[in-house]
Amino acid sequence: MDRSNTVFIGRKPVLNYVLACMTLFKSGHEEVSIKARGRSISRAVDVVEVLKNRFMADAQVSDIKIGTETVESDDRGPSNISTIDITVKA
Amino acid sequence: MDRSNTVFIGRKPVLNYVLACMTLFKSGHEEVSIKARGRSISRAVDVVEVLKNRFMADAQVSDIKIGTETVESDDRGPSNISTIDITVKA
Repeated sequence: MDRSNTVFIGRKPVLNYVLACMTLFKSGHEEVSIKARGRSISRAVDVVEVLKNRFMADAQVSDIKIGTETVESDDRGPSNISTIDITVKA
Repeated sequence: MDRSNTVFIGRKPVLNYVLACMTLFKSGHEEVSIKARGRSISRAVDVVEVLKNRFMADAQVSDIKIGTETVESDDRGPSNISTIDITVKA
């Protein structure tokens, strides 16, 4: 998988990730993939909405996928975590 | 809008909403719409994934929409909140 156009959402402020997306678009990527797991999923949606509504009016969501990943944690054994992958087109 | 086949996700445990979805499917609806705002968005994805993976193997996500709503709060004036609407087909 080519990850060069992917932004992984963590716990930083929303605008950090919006900036990361815009940097990828400016560097020539036509599509950017925004990925998040667990509680960061809400923030991924925030990033896309802020990007569209405040910075790139012509950006469009071209695909949204949801899924489940199994994560190994030391103390509680494997657990399932939800994922989202939002593709945005410039 | 017909809201009879809609489940609004709040702060209750995930399984409560999974059960609500299954009740709608059993009562004859072919599609169920799962809606959430703000931090509940992650839980909406959890609900769909648990429903698909543990209870209804043949359920499919037919559409996912994200958006923004403006909410009026008394103390801080209007603020924007992200939304998600996941349509699941039996």
